[in-house]
Amino acid sequence: MITSSRKKEHLDICCNEDIVAGRTGFDDVRLVHNALPECNMDAVELGVRFLNHRLKAPICIAAMTGGHPDTREINATLATAAEEFGLAMGVGSQRAALENPEMEDSFSVVREHAPNAFLCGNLGIIQLRDNGAEWADKAVEMIDAQALCIHLNPLQEAIQPEGDHDASGCLDALQELCSSCKYPVIVKETGCGISRECARQLFAAGASAVDVGGLGGTSWAAVEQYRAENFRQEALGQHFAEWGIPTAVSVVEASRAGGPVIATGGLNSGTDVAKAIALGASLGGIALALLRPAMQGYQSLYEKIEQIQTEIRVSCFLTGSKNPSELKNVRKYITGISGEMMQYEE
Amino acid sequence: MITSSRKKEHLDICCNEDIVAGRTGFDDVRLVHNALPECNMDAVELGVRFLNHRLKAPICIAAMTGGHPDTREINATLATAAEEFGLAMGVGSQRAALENPEMEDSFSVVREHAPNAFLCGNLGIIQLRDNGAEWADKAVEMIDAQALCIHLNPLQEAIQPEGDHDASGCLDALQELCSSCKYPVIVKETGCGISRECARQLFAAGASAVDVGGLGGTSWAAVEQYRAENFRQEALGQHFAEWGIPTAVSVVEASRAGGPVIATGGLNSGTDVAKAIALGASLGGIALALLRPAMQGYQSLYEKIEQIQTEIRVSCFLTGSKNPSELKNVRKYITGISGEMMQYEE
Amino acid sequence: MITSSRKKEHLDICCNEDIVAGRTGFDDVRLVHNALPECNMDAVELGVRFLNHRLKAPICIAAMTGGHPDTREINATLATAAEEFGLAMGVGSQRAALENPEMEDSFSVVREHAPNAFLCGNLGIIQLRDNGAEWADKAVEMIDAQALCIHLNPLQEAIQPEGDHDASGCLDALQELCSSCKYPVIVKETGCGISRECARQLFAAGASAVDVGGLGGTSWAAVEQYRAENFRQEALGQHFAEWGIPTAVSVVEASRAGGPVIATGGLNSGTDVAKAIALGASLGGIALALLRPAMQGYQSLYEKIEQIQTEIRVSCFLTGSKNPSELKNVRKYITGISGEMMQYEE
Amino acid sequence: MITSSRKKEHLDICCNEDIVAGRTGFDDVRLVHNALPECNMDAVELGVRFLNHRLKAPICIAAMTGGHPDTREINATLATAAEEFGLAMGVGSQRAALENPEMEDSFSVVREHAPNAFLCGNLGIIQLRDNGAEWADKAVEMIDAQALCIHLNPLQEAIQPEGDHDASGCLDALQELCSSCKYPVIVKETGCGISRECARQLFAAGASAVDVGGLGGTSWAAVEQYRAENFRQEALGQHFAEWGIPTAVSVVEASRAGGPVIATGGLNSGTDVAKAIALGASLGGIALALLRPAMQGYQSLYEKIEQIQTEIRVSCFLTGSKNPSELKNVRKYITGISGEMMQYEE
Ligand SMILES: Cc1cc2nc3c(=O)[nH]c(=O)nc-3n(C[C@H](O)[C@H](O)[C@H](O)COP(=O)(O)O)c2cc1C
Ligand SMILES: Cc1cc2nc3c(=O)[nH]c(=O)nc-3n(C[C@H](O)[C@H](O)[C@H](O)COP(=O)(O)O)c2cc1C
Ligand SMILES: Cc1cc2nc3c(=O)[nH]c(=O)nc-3n(C[C@H](O)[C@H](O)[C@H](O)COP(=O)(O)O)c2cc1C
Ligand SMILES: Cc1cc2nc3c(=O)[nH]c(=O)nc-3n(C[C@H](O)[C@H](O)[C@H](O)COP(=O)(O)O)c2cc1C
Repeated sequence: MITSSRKKEHLDICCNEDIVAGRTGFDDVRLVHNALPECNMDAVELGVRFLNHRLKAPICIAAMTGGHPDTREINATLATAAEEFGLAMGVGSQRAALENPEMEDSFSVVREHAPNAFLCGNLGIIQLRDNGAEWADKAVEMIDAQALCIHLNPLQEAIQPEGDHDASGCLDALQELCSSCKYPVIVKETGCGISRECARQLFAAGASAVDVGGLGGTSWAAVEQYRAENFRQEALGQHFAEWGIPTAVSVVEASRAGGPVIATGGLNSGTDVAKAIALGASLGGIALALLRPAMQGYQSLYEKIEQIQTEIRVSCFLTGSKNPSELKNVRKYITGISGEMMQYEE
Repeated sequence: MITSSRKKEHLDICCNEDIVAGRTGFDDVRLVHNALPECNMDAVELGVRFLNHRLKAPICIAAMTGGHPDTREINATLATAAEEFGLAMGVGSQRAALENPEMEDSFSVVREHAPNAFLCGNLGIIQLRDNGAEWADKAVEMIDAQALCIHLNPLQEAIQPEGDHDASGCLDALQELCSSCKYPVIVKETGCGISRECARQLFAAGASAVDVGGLGGTSWAAVEQYRAENFRQEALGQHFAEWGIPTAVSVVEASRAGGPVIATGGLNSGTDVAKAIALGASLGGIALALLRPAMQGYQSLYEKIEQIQTEIRVSCFLTGSKNPSELKNVRKYITGISGEMMQYEE
Repeated sequence: MITSSRKKEHLDICCNEDIVAGRTGFDDVRLVHNALPECNMDAVELGVRFLNHRLKAPICIAAMTGGHPDTREINATLATAAEEFGLAMGVGSQRAALENPEMEDSFSVVREHAPNAFLCGNLGIIQLRDNGAEWADKAVEMIDAQALCIHLNPLQEAIQPEGDHDASGCLDALQELCSSCKYPVIVKETGCGISRECARQLFAAGASAVDVGGLGGTSWAAVEQYRAENFRQEALGQHFAEWGIPTAVSVVEASRAGGPVIATGGLNSGTDVAKAIALGASLGGIALALLRPAMQGYQSLYEKIEQIQTEIRVSCFLTGSKNPSELKNVRKYITGISGEMMQYEE
Repeated sequence: MITSSRKKEHLDICCNEDIVAGRTGFDDVRLVHNALPECNMDAVELGVRFLNHRLKAPICIAAMTGGHPDTREINATLATAAEEFGLAMGVGSQRAALENPEMEDSFSVVREHAPNAFLCGNLGIIQLRDNGAEWADKAVEMIDAQALCIHLNPLQEAIQPEGDHDASGCLDALQELCSSCKYPVIVKETGCGISRECARQLFAAGASAVDVGGLGGTSWAAVEQYRAENFRQEALGQHFAEWGIPTAVSVVEASRAGGPVIATGGLNSGTDVAKAIALGASLGGIALALLRPAMQGYQSLYEKIEQIQTEIRVSCFLTGSKNPSELKNVRKYITGISGEMMQYEE
């Protein structure tokens, strides 16, 4: 199946099927309530600096789509929100457009609707390795991006019929890109999380930030299950649907590696974003929980983002945090399986 | 909505809707049975001293109502019980009467029916900050109170349509009040608990006691859900219904801050009171579990309090405690999530 | 209600109602399998010495009945089994017969049917305190007992309508009895367990053995619930039905106090007995799980005991234990809530 | 019942009844995802060396059948797969053929269909003890085996009507065999696991490898439940169905004893095999999960093994392991009850 129509198929499955698997672990994390916040909720400054840019809220619309004519509208909707709310936004993998320039339009629409937003291009690490920095540069130019996301998705590659099973040489390709490019590179997983060890490798290779893309939200193994061409593939997708590092655990691990971290994977509310920041993340990234309202139209998306913002604001207020960064100083109760998993940290 | 009618609406929702959320943690606490109690259950002396006053049982009828003509009768019923059983009793926020003296009657009725009881006035910390010690003094005078409760409810302020979102300056206002007033000041949360850090601040500011008002009982976020004017508010109430520190955990944290602690939030029996005392509290405070019988009439309330008293008595007896204070020496098994949360204490 | 008919009522409730509450904790205990037992299962020597007597199996038919004409037959059935299987057996409280000698017959029938068994008389510690060593001696004589059980049941006393609420002076009475009597004294709880602290007191007072009578089997609070004369009593019984120390936890605590321990409370199989011994007990005591078959007739009782014996034998074999004592050297996995409760042991 | 027809009966029960009991613990084990595998999934070398032989995958078809004419075909099917996939394979107990040479055919068929596979003969340790090394040699010769499995099954012996209850002398017999025989001896449990202590004894006695045969898969107690001749036997089978050491726990324990370990007991997928190897095993052994497809015919069996292989391959890839041995260096999250059980390891 060619890249473009696969992208459309993914979108349909994500909107119509139950493709969420595993637990993020945020349920096991509670921020300690501050009964005497000594701040003004309405004055909580949600804005954050991220990679030398100013966002109006610590939220990233995670990479999702583009590369098929039908995705143009959704990207426009998402971009309008990114612009209006001052969020970061990633586009989906630009491979389809790099392979076929006719598709560029479905990506560049994003910049049209979000002239001032922090936009991230997107390229798979396999495509980077195989096509070199040139594709990376083109991807950035295509949407006049502030940064480039390089996505890692070995599970999906392993499972999807068209997957590339050879991941060797990727780290070198990343290092080469980082040492030469002018834009910051964000390396992101897409649902299985980034371990402490991996985060260290990525920062050492020159990544400017890491997006954990952890377990507990969209599961690409679950998605592939619905695209399976035979029983064997379907069983494989189902079998690996819960593979990976829960987002909350991954945030803790990756944050200790030193660089900035985006927490993506199963976030569905502002308290999830607040908990992620308290655990060490700089931003919360959200894909599916924004995609579904976006498919219903801008008004739904607008309300969802407003709700999330309010929840972050309330979470800041109730922990006495004047801004999201102060969430990092908030004491947390971490219990249950996530607590056990985090103890494996030395 | 003006303060008075809001109070009435709250009462109705509390009686008719499911507004209890979260877990108190008392289920995770077991007092170690003493098979050889060496005391006389009927001679267990339930009386305790609290803030230099003598109560006949370690129970406080927590602040609930007043400020609307219809609340007069309930306050009279509760006060009759406070007098008969020798309990402490708080009235609901006196703001409505301070704003409109016609409402005073619904509060002063309490002193009429409880000439000898330990009564606590009630004022929100926001109202204290905005109106100064004068309102505090008036609140105390209005019911000839032995003490004044200053309530903290940032979650409710954050969520209710009329909420005041600015909590700054509250600690100063508290400190000022405590340094000048003649009556003891009890600072109380209303369902989200007091952390160790917060309890230290409160005692340092001069609070005579802290009422933890923890998670696991009446949830104001849940209540506001029923008052919501639109879907957004409703979702917000629902989302934060389980926010806060479970009462049992909060009691342990606040007790270590040094001053006397009242354990309120989800207590529903004498064993809950006994466990709270064993964890460090001086009194158990009960709101909802007394409100519902009180709405049915004095007989129901009488029987509920008697049952609670008997349960405290049996708990003392079965742990070999001659009085509630001796419960503090009883060994406890603390397991499950509450045990994990308490380990976060250094 | 007079003692005798109360005894009959208890029996009926125990057989017909669901009066088991709480968890014993044996589910949380696993004996480590030995794949190479190096012994002969048929040669496992189930016989143990207990208080200088030889039992053919480490099983005690726990104190249950007597004191009402209708209980005679059950006692005869139980005694026949004790004789045939060489078990220890306790009779129910002899108070009724001490108050009214006409009832003696329902107790002495036990010795008639079990001329060689290790029989234990039974007296409440309250009756001992109030009537002195004389009653104790009479109880022993009545059935020509090898030992006397003094039962502790403060929960039942606290809850049952006729209960004696004064437990003071009991330890002294026990000490006095132990220092003067010729027979060994076993002190037993009846469903709430014996703590480490209590076990130490009992051995210090001269008890020859302690029967933990822990939580997880017959709950006297649950039983009293069915005898309640009003809603208040019923609620009280229900409320305290899960009060107490789980049997497995209590065995660990009491065993560390130094003297021999009988594990009673919710045991229902030979693996329960084996686990109890592995945790430190000398014998497993069983009441309800033998009472119900006994009410069906000797054949049922016989089969139940045989099954239990076989299960002990298999448990010994599969842990490479040549006899029950060797179970004490078997490694155990202790997990879950019981594991957490046992960690509270210093 | 004679050995031969019992074997047939076992097979029928295993295929038609629910005879899986307990938990393996693999659910509590998660391999840490490596988002940057730096290897080629298709080049993952599944082949391993085991006892100086080369297998094409770290899988052993665990000992199951033979000894009855009807089992010939299944053994042929299994052997065909062992040959094709280059797996190790064990035959079922050869006792029936050693007692009655007419049955040899149902075993030797395995070598006919698997001329190059690593085949293991099979003898119970009781039969070894009673018949000496001669039977062992004959068993090996019968199928021209590379190794001999000596199985331990004290639980089944204890419970099955024809069981041999005397396990003494077994360790000596094993030691004698190991010191004299030319082939490697693998000692295997059959569903209850091998403890650390037992593994040490086995390696000290000269075993070349240990197969843990742990809890969580086929339960022989459950199987015997269906063969029970009376209620007592049935109850015994049911009662002991969950007896034993969970496979994951047993693998950890046995692996620390130093020698090579096969993880059998409830494995049902390639991720189970991968987890077992990461916990210390050399091979994963599978009985029931291969038997059921094998009964449906070679095509089903083929697909199942292919699926398992793919799952191992994906697991290696997603942890950045170039071959199964590298799985041993992968970090693991171990939570829940299995985590607690493993902490009992000093
Ligand atoms: C429909 C859809 C398409 C996606 N496409 C891409 C993509 O092209 N590139 C990428 O890096 N991530 C992609 N992702 C992954 C997301 O960026 C994100 O990491 C993942 O969905 C987990 O977040 P969630 O649980 O909030 O959905 C996609 C996600 C969805 C739902
Ligand atoms: C109907 C109702 C009204 C309340 N009003 C007040 C109030 O005016 N002031 C206050 O400090 N607390 C108020 N509270 C909070 C209680 O004092 C208490 O902290 C809280 O309900 C938790 O206790 P519970 O779980 O036993 O209800 C109110 C509670 C209820 C149920
Ligand atoms: C019907 C019945 C009557 C009992 N009567 C007595 C008694 O008179 N004296 C006594 O010490 N214990 C008595 N017990 C308590 C038992 O000895 C035992 O401690 C308790 O039942 C817990 O064991 P179980 O869970 O196996 O029933 C009685 C128990 C039952 C079921
Ligand atoms: C039908 C069947 C027959 C078996 N027969 C034998 C046997 O003869 N000898 C032996 O060592 N193990 C035998 N086993 C045990 C297996 O080798 C294995 O240890 C056990 O079944 C656990 O693995 P599983 O959960 O994958 O089935 C048999 C298992 C099954 C299912």
